[in-house]
Amino acid sequence: MRAAKLYPKDRVVLREVGFRDGLQLVKQPPPTAQKKEWLNAEHAAGVRHFEVGSFLPVARFPQFADVREMIDAVSALKDGFSSALALNERGAADALATGVDEIMFVVSATEAHSQANTRRSRAEAVEMAARINRRRLETGDTAPVFSTAISMSFGCTLSGTVKPAEVLRLAEALAAAGSDMIALADTVGFAGPRQVAQMAREMRGVIGEIPVSMHFHDTRGLAIANCAAALDNGVRILDGSLGGLGGCPFAPGATGNVAFEDMAFLCQTMGFDTGIDIGMLADARTILERVLPDEPLHGALAVWYRHLLERI
Amino acid sequence: MRAAKLYPKDRVVLREVGFRDGLQLVKQPPPTAQKKEWLNAEHAAGVRHFEVGSFLPVARFPQFADVREMIDAVSALKDGFSSALALNERGAADALATGVDEIMFVVSATEAHSQANTRRSRAEAVEMAARINRRRLETGDTAPVFSTAISMSFGCTLSGTVKPAEVLRLAEALAAAGSDMIALADTVGFAGPRQVAQMAREMRGVIGEIPVSMHFHDTRGLAIANCAAALDNGVRILDGSLGGLGGCPFAPGATGNVAFEDMAFLCQTMGFDTGIDIGMLADARTILERVLPDEPLHGALAVWYRHLLERI
Repeated sequence: MRAAKLYPKDRVVLREVGFRDGLQLVKQPPPTAQKKEWLNAEHAAGVRHFEVGSFLPVARFPQFADVREMIDAVSALKDGFSSALALNERGAADALATGVDEIMFVVSATEAHSQANTRRSRAEAVEMAARINRRRLETGDTAPVFSTAISMSFGCTLSGTVKPAEVLRLAEALAAAGSDMIALADTVGFAGPRQVAQMAREMRGVIGEIPVSMHFHDTRGLAIANCAAALDNGVRILDGSLGGLGGCPFAPGATGNVAFEDMAFLCQTMGFDTGIDIGMLADARTILERVLPDEPLHGALAVWYRHLLERI
Repeated sequence: MRAAKLYPKDRVVLREVGFRDGLQLVKQPPPTAQKKEWLNAEHAAGVRHFEVGSFLPVARFPQFADVREMIDAVSALKDGFSSALALNERGAADALATGVDEIMFVVSATEAHSQANTRRSRAEAVEMAARINRRRLETGDTAPVFSTAISMSFGCTLSGTVKPAEVLRLAEALAAAGSDMIALADTVGFAGPRQVAQMAREMRGVIGEIPVSMHFHDTRGLAIANCAAALDNGVRILDGSLGGLGGCPFAPGATGNVAFEDMAFLCQTMGFDTGIDIGMLADARTILERVLPDEPLHGALAVWYRHLLERI
């Protein structure tokens, strides 16, 4: 299985999800050429894992119309790994027709959110995951990694508090359905570091050696503390977006994904070698400022770094 | 000693330092009446500890000209505790002539910074601390708490890396000089959470039951993770400023003190009762936006909270 190649156990992997989660709400997505410029700059800085889009109807989601081209662009990069969301079997079939390295399927942590968001129950979603897994295994040696994300894992916009036991049961079912990696997403920034630490420890007991990733939003300011808690408790895969691009679907103006550059710096201070050059990452962020001038960017490190350069 | 009253062992205390650290660099400090409006709003939200200024020459630091009036304003508040900086014996004498609840003296963690910033060695600074302590004890029953802060405890603008052993030796000497509380300040945001965790544990071995506080800046994005690490390792006193007011003396535009409201929310998610109402704190922040329109504010929680209100 290629999961070990994408997610070696002995390394911290930081996944750039800005091309997908970061652009999800953007009204004027950048043209493909500018996305590639951004992609190449982050790759040059040492980033290797890119979630580049979602297989969705192009009419409703024009920002992901170039998902195939972006997958190819990542494939052309040395050691680049591409990931794309497939939210149903149609999307998965489309994804399997490409050279994507990882397909990410999403299940809601709560029944209410699952029904409201996808009109299917959590049990039906798990069955769908199992069918997608079988279909990708049929593709043989070239089969991509099959990852599943549990959205609202730390709190739900509809149900409020989410019981960790329900997330763990769902994770166990998704492992049985063939997931190579399981992601816990704090989609709207509900998590706190103690909750994250406990969840990280308990996941290990439920899904054993399957890699766990975590995906934090900074909606209420705790994303970087949650990243630290996850790393302290054995999580080795984290999502982020350069400049915190993305915002929050439920609170216009609020912060979005954890800023990738701040997260990379966190890893550095904690002694994890991510292979990422913080300065080059801060430079890559200036591309975002140029190609998405109307999008607010977040994160502290890049501002500080720019000042350092001005003093030289 | 009044330290137990200011810093009960069984509670997390959040110190609002915006009136001091937050206004240190502000070019147009607000008039006293507006400072009091801000003070009262934070007190109404449940904040009790206020660092309101510094005893410095008024000609050079007009933002602290009203330090005595602000001390009186805090005294008038139910359970309000005032703190002020005294950076030399003259300042300490001035402070002792007021009803301030806590005098804070500052020593640099490194010899280079101590000489550059105060033209005295660290050893001379510790001797000065001992003299200030004796002088405050002479005031008898009304003596304020005497706290000492070690600036640059986690990294120095002049010396770079700071050896934890040097900070610990300095803390031990300051304890011997009569400190009721010892603060470790990350003046320019050098710290990472593992460094903080280790320092918090080692301080306990060196200064025993003397309360330790920590003061984090978000210059490189890790302040909230550092607060979480401090709390996880027994620190029960943290500094912050509403809206992250303050900036960085070495990097214009960079983030300053950790945003008080995000820190208060962190405590809530970690199960610490601070007695602070997050919503009222977010409301208090709007005063800052009005009275300091040119100062950038930071922090994620308040933006999210405001949106919540708009949806009601």
